[in-house]
Amino acid sequence: MSFPKNAWYVACTPDEINAKPLGRTICNERIAFYRQANGQVAAVEDFCPHRGAQLSLGYVCDNNLVCGYHGLVMGCDGKTVSMPLQRTAGFPKIKAYPVVERYGFIWVWPGEAEKADPAKIHHLEWAENPNWAYGGGLYHIKCDYRLMVDNLMDLTHETYVHSTSIGQKEIDETPVNTKTEGDHVITNRFMDNVMAPPFWRANLRGNGLPDDQPVDRWQVCHFSPPSHIMIEVGVALAGRGGYHADPKDKVYSIVVDFLTPETDDTMWYFWGMARNFNVKDTNLTAQIREGQGKVFSEDTAVLEAQQKNLLLHPERRLLMLNIDAGGVQSRRIIDRLVAAEQPQKLAA
Amino acid sequence: MSFPKNAWYVACTPDEINAKPLGRTICNERIAFYRQANGQVAAVEDFCPHRGAQLSLGYVCDNNLVCGYHGLVMGCDGKTVSMPLQRTAGFPKIKAYPVVERYGFIWVWPGEAEKADPAKIHHLEWAENPNWAYGGGLYHIKCDYRLMVDNLMDLTHETYVHSTSIGQKEIDETPVNTKTEGDHVITNRFMDNVMAPPFWRANLRGNGLPDDQPVDRWQVCHFSPPSHIMIEVGVALAGRGGYHADPKDKVYSIVVDFLTPETDDTMWYFWGMARNFNVKDTNLTAQIREGQGKVFSEDTAVLEAQQKNLLLHPERRLLMLNIDAGGVQSRRIIDRLVAAEQPQKLAA
Amino acid sequence: MSFPKNAWYVACTPDEINAKPLGRTICNERIAFYRQANGQVAAVEDFCPHRGAQLSLGYVCDNNLVCGYHGLVMGCDGKTVSMPLQRTAGFPKIKAYPVVERYGFIWVWPGEAEKADPAKIHHLEWAENPNWAYGGGLYHIKCDYRLMVDNLMDLTHETYVHSTSIGQKEIDETPVNTKTEGDHVITNRFMDNVMAPPFWRANLRGNGLPDDQPVDRWQVCHFSPPSHIMIEVGVALAGRGGYHADPKDKVYSIVVDFLTPETDDTMWYFWGMARNFNVKDTNLTAQIREGQGKVFSEDTAVLEAQQKNLLLHPERRLLMLNIDAGGVQSRRIIDRLVAAEQPQKLAA
Repeated sequence: MSFPKNAWYVACTPDEINAKPLGRTICNERIAFYRQANGQVAAVEDFCPHRGAQLSLGYVCDNNLVCGYHGLVMGCDGKTVSMPLQRTAGFPKIKAYPVVERYGFIWVWPGEAEKADPAKIHHLEWAENPNWAYGGGLYHIKCDYRLMVDNLMDLTHETYVHSTSIGQKEIDETPVNTKTEGDHVITNRFMDNVMAPPFWRANLRGNGLPDDQPVDRWQVCHFSPPSHIMIEVGVALAGRGGYHADPKDKVYSIVVDFLTPETDDTMWYFWGMARNFNVKDTNLTAQIREGQGKVFSEDTAVLEAQQKNLLLHPERRLLMLNIDAGGVQSRRIIDRLVAAEQPQKLAA
Repeated sequence: MSFPKNAWYVACTPDEINAKPLGRTICNERIAFYRQANGQVAAVEDFCPHRGAQLSLGYVCDNNLVCGYHGLVMGCDGKTVSMPLQRTAGFPKIKAYPVVERYGFIWVWPGEAEKADPAKIHHLEWAENPNWAYGGGLYHIKCDYRLMVDNLMDLTHETYVHSTSIGQKEIDETPVNTKTEGDHVITNRFMDNVMAPPFWRANLRGNGLPDDQPVDRWQVCHFSPPSHIMIEVGVALAGRGGYHADPKDKVYSIVVDFLTPETDDTMWYFWGMARNFNVKDTNLTAQIREGQGKVFSEDTAVLEAQQKNLLLHPERRLLMLNIDAGGVQSRRIIDRLVAAEQPQKLAA
Repeated sequence: MSFPKNAWYVACTPDEINAKPLGRTICNERIAFYRQANGQVAAVEDFCPHRGAQLSLGYVCDNNLVCGYHGLVMGCDGKTVSMPLQRTAGFPKIKAYPVVERYGFIWVWPGEAEKADPAKIHHLEWAENPNWAYGGGLYHIKCDYRLMVDNLMDLTHETYVHSTSIGQKEIDETPVNTKTEGDHVITNRFMDNVMAPPFWRANLRGNGLPDDQPVDRWQVCHFSPPSHIMIEVGVALAGRGGYHADPKDKVYSIVVDFLTPETDDTMWYFWGMARNFNVKDTNLTAQIREGQGKVFSEDTAVLEAQQKNLLLHPERRLLMLNIDAGGVQSRRIIDRLVAAEQPQKLAA
């Protein structure tokens, strides 16, 4: 197993379930998500106990999901509520998944329901604070989600994969620092007095700043279990304090990455960007989203090809250089969480 | 094995072999079908004994099939007739399949040829009687054909899968009766004094009857081995005798379903409708065929998703409710026929 | 293993690597081909030793290939040259492949590099002699390359597969002669006083000869290891000496076929035609190339269907008739070369 199941993962966004149920595989579990009449989101196994039909092909009635094959009415707890002309008391229960709508996402706990505590959902300051704006999207990628952890915890690749947007030569000429604090891994890189690349020049203009002067640029990557990566990124006019510069002298954003395993070899990539400048400008939000979508699609080809190579050569050991420390330390935390879920564990 | 091979299955329709040979897999056998110069249909293994080329890519010459690779001439009995410059007496024989053209279909016997008796082909009264008209089509579906047996022997699903055409709430509020007579399973449901759904309102108009009055509606499903399902369906103006009403007061059809296994997990679905009203109206035939084609395509998505779910959870036992009795009893007959073909059988 | 790896195979044509690197699998080896700044072609494993990225997605810098993920600089010898901020001396070496550009093709040796001798590359007289013109193309075919060896070493199939272009009935009415000389297999067929089929009538016109008179036609197929097949083909006005006729009385070409295994069940087919008449006429070259491309695409469907049939029936023995002798004898040479590469071999 390459992922912990006792964890909160982003499963989908509200727009994906508002019109009709959504069938999606998360951590190898086929799940039907739907919005109940009471507004709450529910998630049950996508398997009708009657004949195995896919419940997500059905429709919502009150707080229940009606199977689109023979009309079995499934409750949000996995217990059959009713079925025309049938006594359903003895019907087998299906799995129901703890699910929470928060911060503009639907979060699901694919593991043992009794261990799910909504208080443990990763706190997202920017999602609740009106001084921030957010835009994002979703990609399906045919790779082990841990390859994306590596990718995001080492931004050296921007110089190569994203050379026309956010990449610049100074990135891979500047050493990174990586440290682990409990279950939190932080990798940072600071580049002073450099020219901003195109994506950041556009953001400078978006905040009414000149785009033709040297800047101080920073990247601070934060990994948190199970596989959420928030990256503080930004540029300030050079010499104004960099990361700590006054808001009027910089543009500052958080790159938001929720990596959700679909299967062992495929993943859902929820990506986005939160910013705290010019937050009412919805055109700017759309423009940043489009730019980021293009940039992040460049990673897809690289990671899917890497995945194929690794499957062909499972015996090969990859190198773990200093630039890889962010991924390596993050994977150690993942490995520990996965091991803790294995049956041989005697005490928690 | 999920299907008997000593049985007559519908393999194709005449239009599929008139212009050139047809390669089609039936019950895991790759078969080349072709029409001989004498008008008869022949069926041989789709494997040239010379180098394994696919014979169905060749062409017909006289009563034989010429391999399109090196010109080997294959006879309809599976014996090589000739080959340019070669003595073919010692060439290995390939399998030839008993095949019969009848009722507007090509029937094939994929099992032991010596047991094939054309007299055992399912009799289709409507196919020979000028008082009936027929229209139909073919779908390829990625599911075990037995899921389609279940589907057709329990029409409760019409309320859900076909809600805009033939479904109506009264279907799943009305109990069904199922009985087995030898190798014949019959499930019926009678709904009195209901409003007809759209598909049947169109048929009432097609027979010059009012479509805004209550009707008595019936469904009588007949399963016969190996997997032919004929469903008597119709509506009569309410109170005129229902199923037994005078022809001028009703519209009555037979839904024709020949389910032919392709492999263990895929099938050919020959569907159609025979009617005994307004039979000369070819526009009506085309209109019914188009409507039925849309309705039956709705089942495809449901069954293919169900098949995926069942393959992921082979250990799960499906429920067998009263509404499932038609499918359950039909499968028992199939199981018996399959068991009878296994090697451990000592006497026939 | 169905192919020798210690051999020179055609990997690609120069136009495929001039703009950017090419990733291509040859004999189950994933290889990155690229043109160095010095003009030489290089070939290394398509696997970055850092994290397994596909090197062919990167770019060329000087004589090296830069990984497009994190900027590792790979040398043409499989040794890492450098990487930003890293000491690379201890990086594992990847495989480098002997590669030669000659005769308008890139040749690769996928086996043991120390055994590669460029002098052993198949000599192609027509590629260096200004009295010859050449045009060709590349097809990817989903079949064992040995099925193509069979195909090309027995041209009987032209009568059937290519009936509208180069096929004619006299081909399969005329016996073939096959002989093996060392590692060279030759199959020939001579047809005197026949009418030329459409493709050859066009070539007669292309050389200013009448196309409505009887001709003497010949086919001489040459197999050389590992899987290169050159076929001398042509027609001469009847009675002027046939194969030996004066150049002004005939049209003579060499069908060029380089069969390169991709995997055990798929292949790259480099096909073309060299001619020694009207060699300055580039329109004629383009016209022949287009015609040949159409003819050779007809083989693809036949061979891919044959491959599927053989995979379904691995136990069946194919016939080996006199017309198959060319393929049979060629395969014997292949088998011997493959056996010689197996570990149990004690002395060379």
